[in-house]
Amino acid sequence: MNKTLFFIAAICALAGQGIAQEDMGIMKLDEFRYPKQRKIIDIPNVNGLQVLKCDFHMHTVFTDGHVWPNVRIQEAWKEGLDAIAFTEHVEYIPHKDDVKPGNLRPHELAKNQAAEQNILLIKGTEVTRNTPPGHFNALFIQDDKNLVVSRDSELDNQAIQAVVDQKAFIFWNHPGWKAAQIEGSYEWIPFVDKMYKDKNLHGIEVVNGFGFHKKALDWALDRGLTIIGNTDIHNLIAHEYDIDRNGIHRTMTLVMAKDRSAEAIRTALENGNTVAWSSKYLFGKEEHVRNLFHACVKLIPVFYEKTNAKKAASRYYELQNNSDLYFELKLVNGKATKSMILYPKSSQILIADAGQGKLVYEVVSTYVRSDKHLQVELSL
Amino acid sequence: MNKTLFFIAAICALAGQGIAQEDMGIMKLDEFRYPKQRKIIDIPNVNGLQVLKCDFHMHTVFTDGHVWPNVRIQEAWKEGLDAIAFTEHVEYIPHKDDVKPGNLRPHELAKNQAAEQNILLIKGTEVTRNTPPGHFNALFIQDDKNLVVSRDSELDNQAIQAVVDQKAFIFWNHPGWKAAQIEGSYEWIPFVDKMYKDKNLHGIEVVNGFGFHKKALDWALDRGLTIIGNTDIHNLIAHEYDIDRNGIHRTMTLVMAKDRSAEAIRTALENGNTVAWSSKYLFGKEEHVRNLFHACVKLIPVFYEKTNAKKAASRYYELQNNSDLYFELKLVNGKATKSMILYPKSSQILIADAGQGKLVYEVVSTYVRSDKHLQVELSL
Amino acid sequence: MNKTLFFIAAICALAGQGIAQEDMGIMKLDEFRYPKQRKIIDIPNVNGLQVLKCDFHMHTVFTDGHVWPNVRIQEAWKEGLDAIAFTEHVEYIPHKDDVKPGNLRPHELAKNQAAEQNILLIKGTEVTRNTPPGHFNALFIQDDKNLVVSRDSELDNQAIQAVVDQKAFIFWNHPGWKAAQIEGSYEWIPFVDKMYKDKNLHGIEVVNGFGFHKKALDWALDRGLTIIGNTDIHNLIAHEYDIDRNGIHRTMTLVMAKDRSAEAIRTALENGNTVAWSSKYLFGKEEHVRNLFHACVKLIPVFYEKTNAKKAASRYYELQNNSDLYFELKLVNGKATKSMILYPKSSQILIADAGQGKLVYEVVSTYVRSDKHLQVELSL
Amino acid sequence: MNKTLFFIAAICALAGQGIAQEDMGIMKLDEFRYPKQRKIIDIPNVNGLQVLKCDFHMHTVFTDGHVWPNVRIQEAWKEGLDAIAFTEHVEYIPHKDDVKPGNLRPHELAKNQAAEQNILLIKGTEVTRNTPPGHFNALFIQDDKNLVVSRDSELDNQAIQAVVDQKAFIFWNHPGWKAAQIEGSYEWIPFVDKMYKDKNLHGIEVVNGFGFHKKALDWALDRGLTIIGNTDIHNLIAHEYDIDRNGIHRTMTLVMAKDRSAEAIRTALENGNTVAWSSKYLFGKEEHVRNLFHACVKLIPVFYEKTNAKKAASRYYELQNNSDLYFELKLVNGKATKSMILYPKSSQILIADAGQGKLVYEVVSTYVRSDKHLQVELSL
Repeated sequence: MNKTLFFIAAICALAGQGIAQEDMGIMKLDEFRYPKQRKIIDIPNVNGLQVLKCDFHMHTVFTDGHVWPNVRIQEAWKEGLDAIAFTEHVEYIPHKDDVKPGNLRPHELAKNQAAEQNILLIKGTEVTRNTPPGHFNALFIQDDKNLVVSRDSELDNQAIQAVVDQKAFIFWNHPGWKAAQIEGSYEWIPFVDKMYKDKNLHGIEVVNGFGFHKKALDWALDRGLTIIGNTDIHNLIAHEYDIDRNGIHRTMTLVMAKDRSAEAIRTALENGNTVAWSSKYLFGKEEHVRNLFHACVKLIPVFYEKTNAKKAASRYYELQNNSDLYFELKLVNGKATKSMILYPKSSQILIADAGQGKLVYEVVSTYVRSDKHLQVELSL
Repeated sequence: MNKTLFFIAAICALAGQGIAQEDMGIMKLDEFRYPKQRKIIDIPNVNGLQVLKCDFHMHTVFTDGHVWPNVRIQEAWKEGLDAIAFTEHVEYIPHKDDVKPGNLRPHELAKNQAAEQNILLIKGTEVTRNTPPGHFNALFIQDDKNLVVSRDSELDNQAIQAVVDQKAFIFWNHPGWKAAQIEGSYEWIPFVDKMYKDKNLHGIEVVNGFGFHKKALDWALDRGLTIIGNTDIHNLIAHEYDIDRNGIHRTMTLVMAKDRSAEAIRTALENGNTVAWSSKYLFGKEEHVRNLFHACVKLIPVFYEKTNAKKAASRYYELQNNSDLYFELKLVNGKATKSMILYPKSSQILIADAGQGKLVYEVVSTYVRSDKHLQVELSL
Repeated sequence: MNKTLFFIAAICALAGQGIAQEDMGIMKLDEFRYPKQRKIIDIPNVNGLQVLKCDFHMHTVFTDGHVWPNVRIQEAWKEGLDAIAFTEHVEYIPHKDDVKPGNLRPHELAKNQAAEQNILLIKGTEVTRNTPPGHFNALFIQDDKNLVVSRDSELDNQAIQAVVDQKAFIFWNHPGWKAAQIEGSYEWIPFVDKMYKDKNLHGIEVVNGFGFHKKALDWALDRGLTIIGNTDIHNLIAHEYDIDRNGIHRTMTLVMAKDRSAEAIRTALENGNTVAWSSKYLFGKEEHVRNLFHACVKLIPVFYEKTNAKKAASRYYELQNNSDLYFELKLVNGKATKSMILYPKSSQILIADAGQGKLVYEVVSTYVRSDKHLQVELSL
Repeated sequence: MNKTLFFIAAICALAGQGIAQEDMGIMKLDEFRYPKQRKIIDIPNVNGLQVLKCDFHMHTVFTDGHVWPNVRIQEAWKEGLDAIAFTEHVEYIPHKDDVKPGNLRPHELAKNQAAEQNILLIKGTEVTRNTPPGHFNALFIQDDKNLVVSRDSELDNQAIQAVVDQKAFIFWNHPGWKAAQIEGSYEWIPFVDKMYKDKNLHGIEVVNGFGFHKKALDWALDRGLTIIGNTDIHNLIAHEYDIDRNGIHRTMTLVMAKDRSAEAIRTALENGNTVAWSSKYLFGKEEHVRNLFHACVKLIPVFYEKTNAKKAASRYYELQNNSDLYFELKLVNGKATKSMILYPKSSQILIADAGQGKLVYEVVSTYVRSDKHLQVELSL
């Protein structure tokens, strides 16, 4: 839904109040007011599971973000998220001259507003070690009492242990960040390998904002770690994402959960039932991306056949994308339309030579490995 | 879906071709190209019936329209229509010095393109008598052979009989047009009354473009005639409707049909299973508008309760609009949020005093009579 | 300029960096990134004076705003402002449990960023007395050392004196706010009258956000006080104004100044050389609004004359609006097109009967008094 | 200017009429109506010459276009063009079974509407020979009486001579079209060379719609032929260009003329005073593109200097683009911001090391040869 329409509507909606105030000599000029609504991001259920829209990485003025916590709830509401977590840095507090530190203070300040607006608010923090090993998010923590504030590298293990002790769900953030600059590349480092072997690493942030960390996707796939995508937003979403146009969304993790609750999200995260979504792209385990594709896209026969000069017959189909996701397809096998773009909530005509049983397309807007797109079969 | 996203995608989609042409010394500059897609207008089924989007009134260069017939198919495709009818004037052919008349010629020229793009194309014509009685559309005609071309008022009956003989579905177009200017008002005239009593009038075009003919709605309701809304477009849709923003649609008739076929549309029209949709408004029989509302809008408990200083408890709900329709509500009965705008595919928070069983809202963006909005109950 | 275009361009612009990071295994997905640019609001000079775009009223987390000071500079840059002032409340500090108070601290934190982005940053504060008398902004203050923090009404005079002592430019904020609710109306109160007579009141905030305080305009006009319009923004501009569409702007004061400097702004404010701009409307002294209109709008003869059946001749003209302002005109005197909307950077055709020397239009999108629009003459 | 704003305004503008009709029982639902206005494309004068926006290649239903001639005038008006020419095919008339041929008939039908809307309408035609040699546009023809209708290749010379005899301004259309497909490449063919030597070829359509014919630019530059860019639109502009967003324009020729008249356009075309504009790109003689750049872009010192840890000073500048054109710059010489995008009517901050006299940037969004961008000096 487009904000302009909201806005028009707002004129009407506010007219009543306007008149009331008008009586008191104040005229309302609402034509340019931004309309308020919670956008619905339309993604059908996948095999009976709800697809929850989650962002598990963001900051406020309490560490190095630019906004008060309430703004993050407003943003989540406007942009159709189901769940978010404030993940303030444990060890990095640049505003401390002005703002009193408190790792879970944003959570405390915003929790009622979140409840009122039906946003699930999950307690989290960012364990912010120097690189390597870098940063880790811990979700579902209990409190912020025993976190390790010193960045001394000798305390790296202890810092992780502090969140392990809280039974947190832990994922490695943006593995290539800085690491790529320091080393020229980024690697699966021993520190992380030990966490993994100790079962203290549960996921990897494969997409951070607009950056897709390619190797990280393969590491997650090969080790059965959960694939995560987040904004890691510090600034305003509205100043970083071209969000007001419909179809433009912030980076997020699509969590396939049995219901809309924090518990179901935790279970889904532990089971690895996620797909990361950033810009036009989906990133995940092949099975999940495939199921998501087939939940969203349907092939409808048009019952129209055209015969050309050489007496070859073409059959017409409509390929419908019933979701707000975006899919771009290239033909791999069969004789049919070579490439197609399925924009959010739209369809395209597919023309196939008669007499074929199926077509195979590569969905080039998906990554099921750093070097591999999903392939789908369409039965004719 | 927003066209900008399409457009970005188009850059990628066309890149391949671009490269091919580039080899031949032609560089493709696709950044500003308009993306091609069929928009899906999202309206859930109503009691198991599909909601088909139809426009039964439009013109081309063959009478007084400004476009070749293929443009009307392009427009229908872009704008998510299921069915259209060319309805050229029988008696008014202003381009005849340049264009050879042919009442069903646009249908003939466009029918293959319509089939390829999965648009149902229904044969129609506009019987264009002087006012009164004015204009009538005849749908599902067979041919254009025996239509009465003269506008002599003595032939008015004969002109209608010509389409009755073809077993057409006939509706009175824009009853207030010109009539209101001639008479200062418009009335249920004897000519039309006779058609109605002879069972030769089956519907009324209550909304024509941006004009809602208020009395006509009551006439249709009181006589069980089918309620129709059309564009009656002569110019480009793109130059008359602010269509490229999502949520902005052309005027249309929502036909609740058992399947997506011309036959099912005819049956639904004969049964009066329609709601007209123009701008933000819905127009129809109370039962149909009510069913449509409840198919689109759901009340979800938020499980959050807030107690104020006076120990009164408020309960929170999310009111979701799962459609591309627009609903504006005003509280009529109960203690709760006084007014709400449900934009397409969005939701709002509803706050109600605890201890109530239901609320009653008036849906002020609907007309179930010229002076009456739909009232809906929400169970808490 | 439209952000989508920026955005497309951003794809290209970032491609180079993308490739660099790509080498390190990070792929940039920039398609939905918000493009960065300083928008130019196009308003021609008025009688040789530059028209500076200023917002003299806004808040940050240091009192009751929702953002860090740097966000206000970002907003000013994006939205084409020349000058802003942080005006934190002296007496109201709701975040004090978390944020260390400091009335000019936002100024201190943001001043370098403002300088780098060519935004003029003026020191200000909001003297926030209970209503009555309500709130006053003081611009061009020197420091925040001797401000009166107590809201005790016995200290109201002293609180104003504290900013008078700093030689501040002082204006009364949103005179109807709360006052209208307390009294059922709002009045020119003795406290303010005394300030005015003592020459300690220099302007009135006639427009605050989307509220036009009608009586306040007449008070300013009758007493020669400067007319001011501000956002008084606490939240994000992006969440309150529908700003990303071109032509949509935040509320502001247009200051007609001899150059683009803080000094010239002060002089212009003292001379009353301002027009307030909110939504589609302009508010100001008749002379200023008239000069602004004529600087922006030009009548161009088309040299086309049409003679109708009655041998009366019509002449054609193009009325061009060379600014980003909006003007809506209604004919008052003469025979010509009855009403016209001059959208930003656009023109309309004006058709006038031949043989007239001039036309008079009322510019209904302007207020030169609470009940009076500007009238303009167009010479034919 | 953005159409949404227009649209809002339209609500108000139409309210009066709405009320009038309301009295007669017709309610106006104007919320989604497309607003009407002539957009101003803002390009400053270049050395005292007006920059006229022209499209010299388009079709209607009279040959193979999809619209009645009046639509082309509507489009030109909306999109801010100064001059257009209908250029129907002489030899290709696919609608002839339905539409009576008449090469200049569209001109005749539309000329009054063009005059009323202040659009300069130039008589033209497209001489449509088989490839090679392909198609040529002839502007400023007198009539369509002696044009050669047969496509027989033996009549190619005679067909050109027919428009030469009318003293037409003749340019070669889209030289690579089909030619590239037939030959694998396209060349400066003897037929065209003879025309050139006989002074019967005056320009080349270097850009046709979204296709930049690279070799053609060099041919034009090397032979002093006029550089032309056109849409060659057959369909609706609104369905081919993403036009409703501000900053998105149709392909056109910018003609630098001494006044806004057909005569001045002809003189400018004969003098080669043109730049083609398509998508984000400008194409033309180096001198013209340079003059256009400097007319649009200004460097403003910010008077802010920052000294870094190494005591090196950086100076700040604002680079302003006062036009609706788009410029993308890459640093070639000097120490300063490496790349910048100057969106329409916007500016960017440029940071340069202190102590330099000038910087050199390449304007990569321009082509002054098929393999060469404009280079500009900025004096510090």
